[in-house]
Amino acid sequence: MSLHPVILAGGSGTRFWPLSRRSRPKQFLPLASDRPLLVDTFARLPPLARAQDSYVVCGESHAPEVRRLVPSLPLAHLLIEPAARNTAPAIGLAAVHVAHDDPQGVLVVLPSDHHIGDAAGFRAALETAASLAQDGLVVTLGVRPTRPDTGYGYIHLGERIDPGGPVAHHVRRFVEKPDSERAKAYLASGEYLWNAGIFVMRADVILREIARHLPGLDAALTRIARALATPEYVATLATEYPGAEAISIDFGVMEKAGGIACVPGDFGWSDVGSFAALPEVRPADAQGNVVQGEAVLVDCGGCVVLSSGRTVAAVGLRDLVIVDAGDALLVVPKDRAQDVRAAVDALGRRGATKVL
Amino acid sequence: MSLHPVILAGGSGTRFWPLSRRSRPKQFLPLASDRPLLVDTFARLPPLARAQDSYVVCGESHAPEVRRLVPSLPLAHLLIEPAARNTAPAIGLAAVHVAHDDPQGVLVVLPSDHHIGDAAGFRAALETAASLAQDGLVVTLGVRPTRPDTGYGYIHLGERIDPGGPVAHHVRRFVEKPDSERAKAYLASGEYLWNAGIFVMRADVILREIARHLPGLDAALTRIARALATPEYVATLATEYPGAEAISIDFGVMEKAGGIACVPGDFGWSDVGSFAALPEVRPADAQGNVVQGEAVLVDCGGCVVLSSGRTVAAVGLRDLVIVDAGDALLVVPKDRAQDVRAAVDALGRRGATKVL
Repeated sequence: MSLHPVILAGGSGTRFWPLSRRSRPKQFLPLASDRPLLVDTFARLPPLARAQDSYVVCGESHAPEVRRLVPSLPLAHLLIEPAARNTAPAIGLAAVHVAHDDPQGVLVVLPSDHHIGDAAGFRAALETAASLAQDGLVVTLGVRPTRPDTGYGYIHLGERIDPGGPVAHHVRRFVEKPDSERAKAYLASGEYLWNAGIFVMRADVILREIARHLPGLDAALTRIARALATPEYVATLATEYPGAEAISIDFGVMEKAGGIACVPGDFGWSDVGSFAALPEVRPADAQGNVVQGEAVLVDCGGCVVLSSGRTVAAVGLRDLVIVDAGDALLVVPKDRAQDVRAAVDALGRRGATKVL
Repeated sequence: MSLHPVILAGGSGTRFWPLSRRSRPKQFLPLASDRPLLVDTFARLPPLARAQDSYVVCGESHAPEVRRLVPSLPLAHLLIEPAARNTAPAIGLAAVHVAHDDPQGVLVVLPSDHHIGDAAGFRAALETAASLAQDGLVVTLGVRPTRPDTGYGYIHLGERIDPGGPVAHHVRRFVEKPDSERAKAYLASGEYLWNAGIFVMRADVILREIARHLPGLDAALTRIARALATPEYVATLATEYPGAEAISIDFGVMEKAGGIACVPGDFGWSDVGSFAALPEVRPADAQGNVVQGEAVLVDCGGCVVLSSGRTVAAVGLRDLVIVDAGDALLVVPKDRAQDVRAAVDALGRRGATKVL
């Protein structure tokens, strides 16, 4: 079985500003270890899969950094989106490339900016998923929820596919981010898993599903596929891709398709959604503080303090995020960490683009 | 009447770290305006008194900065303490110098690191004090309290000295920093004023009081006085001064002496005791934030944000102090601003002396 990791690296959020910048989004930041999340993502693949067999989908401005960080990625496997069009076109483009060499090759679609605490458990789940995918199923990994989080989509599990085989379920349905009450009910039921955006399926299978549910994207991908390995490829991609519907694979395909399988897992997954999530993925001191760089904390608890070069002194703080990025500094309570965007927007309105 | 301001600039606190450093204590910082507090202190003297007639008492390491900031101060009026010995020896030393030229010259003893909002009202109070001092009284300025502060000493007022003349009272007694209950009673009584450490008296009078209450200091000052204007001065000062009892003028003289007068005043005094006091002395925005430098505050109130060069973004903060001094950053709640010392001590233990 040949596995082709497809690493989606097109993200460009603001929730890790001031560490993240337009030119250096979250996947390039060493948030969970001393290596960028993208590098961690590749590092946990072997022995299940190899960087040489992988694809990365990203924007043109981020391609040089991907090449620098993942030198073993073949240049032809660095798929540059002429415009960001969400995950369905990105995965479709990768499927076209895989299918060109190996129509039944199995794609392992992975976000480039998540954290996995238990890499071996993760690979075991992927292996189960891949064997189901080889049989023609679209498979997703589901993460057992640990709290009634309203920030994730959920997967409603159905029956076991093979009660005697490895643990995998039919998917009853994908559900969007729930409200708080619903999230509590999902957690209590034990029938719902977090949708981590990790999908495993054969190239021909996902292209068939795209053809069924997203005919516009299918038409564009068909023209791109025809141009593959010809001198017309780049021009065709530039013409076709930006016109594809910008839609997520979840919404565009998964929520509509039938016959999807889910492999549940407990492998210490975190989407590292904001600075407030760092205590999930990094060691904390006895008071629950995550500290990086030269910092002295006196009577502080639950804080995230990231310094770069400068001495940070914090006294008497609870659940506060302090991020010093050299030319810019952020201070925000953990429970407002999602609102960093408001500061970034305000800086943009002021024209402070050099720190954005 | 010749008035001799005596500016006490020997302070070396840590409550304004990281703006203040060992080499740059509070009096050299532009905390209340765009000029250092020491410069503000001189600027509010004219036309009542002149820098040329003033004296500054400070440590050797700070003398060059005083000369730079107050170029009109005569070099012979820059009195360098061989060792810091608190205010009684410092004022005694200044009195010896004033008395050498003008035994009945009037000293106006002023801290170098306080803020006065109403300079004209302040000078009017000093003028009243100076006229009483000329008659041989030791006079202190008292500040009408606006809150039951437990961080200041208080002056218990007695009878009016001259019900027909300018407002001035006999002092019943000086009282040390009270507990909270006592401070509330003081405020309610209307009979207690804050002791701002501002004293006005003739040189011969304060030297006589020192002789009465601090005989050891008197003996040292007598030997220093004899050496004045001789080649032995520096050596004598170096021998005598460090041995003098390190005691405040309040505790060493004022609390023991009789016949002290107090001129009450409302002249916008603040001792600028910590970063939390900056909203008293600097303009704030509509949400009560004091902001300096490039900073964007989103949904913040009551904060003090001082930046230097770096962009600071703050989101969702209440009553927090953020001070970025280039090589060091402090974050502390306003109500813990007095505890900056704890961070400075911790940095000292770590050997981070380059930022201290």
